[in-house]
Amino acid sequence: VRLGPGTEFDLIRNLVGEPGADARVLVGPGDDAAVLEEGWVVTCDLSVEGVHFRRDWMSPEELGGRAMRAALSDLAAMAAEPVAVLLALGGAVADHRSGYLLAVGRGARQVAEALGGSLAGGDVTRSPGPLIIDVTALGRAAEPVLRRGARVGDDVWVTGALGGAAAAVALLNDGREPGPDLRRCLTHPEPRIEVARRLAATGVLHALLDLSDGLAGDAGHLAAASEVAVEVDATLVPVHAGAREALHVERALALALHGGEDYELLFAADPAFRAESEALAHELGLTLSRVGGVHEGSGVRLRLADGRVVEAGGGWDHFGDPGGAGP
Amino acid sequence: VRLGPGTEFDLIRNLVGEPGADARVLVGPGDDAAVLEEGWVVTCDLSVEGVHFRRDWMSPEELGGRAMRAALSDLAAMAAEPVAVLLALGGAVADHRSGYLLAVGRGARQVAEALGGSLAGGDVTRSPGPLIIDVTALGRAAEPVLRRGARVGDDVWVTGALGGAAAAVALLNDGREPGPDLRRCLTHPEPRIEVARRLAATGVLHALLDLSDGLAGDAGHLAAASEVAVEVDATLVPVHAGAREALHVERALALALHGGEDYELLFAADPAFRAESEALAHELGLTLSRVGGVHEGSGVRLRLADGRVVEAGGGWDHFGDPGGAGP
Repeated sequence: VRLGPGTEFDLIRNLVGEPGADARVLVGPGDDAAVLEEGWVVTCDLSVEGVHFRRDWMSPEELGGRAMRAALSDLAAMAAEPVAVLLALGGAVADHRSGYLLAVGRGARQVAEALGGSLAGGDVTRSPGPLIIDVTALGRAAEPVLRRGARVGDDVWVTGALGGAAAAVALLNDGREPGPDLRRCLTHPEPRIEVARRLAATGVLHALLDLSDGLAGDAGHLAAASEVAVEVDATLVPVHAGAREALHVERALALALHGGEDYELLFAADPAFRAESEALAHELGLTLSRVGGVHEGSGVRLRLADGRVVEAGGGWDHFGDPGGAGP
Repeated sequence: VRLGPGTEFDLIRNLVGEPGADARVLVGPGDDAAVLEEGWVVTCDLSVEGVHFRRDWMSPEELGGRAMRAALSDLAAMAAEPVAVLLALGGAVADHRSGYLLAVGRGARQVAEALGGSLAGGDVTRSPGPLIIDVTALGRAAEPVLRRGARVGDDVWVTGALGGAAAAVALLNDGREPGPDLRRCLTHPEPRIEVARRLAATGVLHALLDLSDGLAGDAGHLAAASEVAVEVDATLVPVHAGAREALHVERALALALHGGEDYELLFAADPAFRAESEALAHELGLTLSRVGGVHEGSGVRLRLADGRVVEAGGGWDHFGDPGGAGP
């Protein structure tokens, strides 16, 4: 399993080892989602109170919706179209009695249906404390785009603006109220489902993933999966304007690089993509930023404004030093 | 959604409401698993420490294996064959550092592979305390057998012996050590995958589910889904011999009816099945017990040894009065 550095990913490497050969599993562990026979793309995403969210940050409907958005983003990251979702919820008896758990479930269901996935099943159970939301998302892709496949000489691009969700969390953790734009980055991240399919249709995308661990962390996954090095130019990273305004410029950039949970897309494309990027960005109503390139080697390097080139460091890691997001 | 009584199922009813029409989802919430286009059968099963298990009951490998067995039993309950699984694990940092979380994952993976499902993906995250295991199981069935379909005049059957897992839990909760047979009911329940497919091949099965909520609770789901009444003859219930020996006969029967987590099969079949049941049981190496019948009406009735007929009561309910299983 070729993933970037981090103790969380060490555990996955140890668990999976050398995956067995199974003709029914076309892509196994290590990508944003698995690919099964007939183009089925499946992923699950576990959100736990106190780790991924705090309930004083948003309404129960928003909590459920956000968990669903995060899971569906993993389908977008494969250029897949949602078909169905399973929703597993765990909550305390009091959360059931008060209707809180139902509100979380309804929020998740509404987002799934709005984005094309039917609620097909799930599980409900008691929790000894923390709210637990696990979403399984099932989709289909005629030609899924994987993390592996980036080639030396490719450009590296991202969609949208980065660091907004992590900035909102940073403000909340500082006891400050994020403005509506930043708050929305946290509560309503947009899985780039249609954008990914449109990008894949250009035919010049070589690798694709979504930004859940921060640009540095996810570029590390891209580099590891493709067995290349990625160089990111710090001056080209599209840091969210609200994050730049509310925090120091340096801190906002750090959150864009290491904070995670933006759910924008990161992709490697042939330089031929440059010619069509502007028209495509206009068509999609979304900025497309060329942030770096693919080189021989391994890992992620960051080119700073002063010309120095440094190791980029990792992203969000549940078992290591946490990045910007999470309580 | 036609499920039996219980506050846990009320929440599912409230959440799902009237499912929307989606040609890609052939069977939605309310059965053991969902059925998607092309015969894909998908289910998820969430196990939480302190609710579904205690870690002093078994090794981490057994905990993971048991969670996987429970999820794969839901595929058996549809007469489906496993293809792949996703494994989501949540644990404290200390459980990661000590290798405990990895051992749980390995136990789950080994069971999946032994039963025909490849580990295709998953998620690993930190938990603020309780160990969290969520398994998504994906399988295929040419002709899935549902909970609905039982007809007035059908017989009601179960495989194997019931109450063993709940008896093991009852003993552990009383500070007693269950014998190896009973302990194995808890740690190594056998998903009846091949048995279910063989039963379905007889062509006289009208409804099928697995026994996770206790016979009374699951018969309630069968009755609700099929819009019939089920009568169970208490004298015909195959109570696990180890449970009868270790506990009072009445308590063992109560655990078979309400305790849950046996993961045997419950099915309604045309009376024509009686003629072949003995040969089939011999072929499968598993007892098949006719425990009652399907009648006009609704709900589950229990015919006692003295001839009285009473309401059977419910099964395991996470948000109501707990049944026999669970800590």
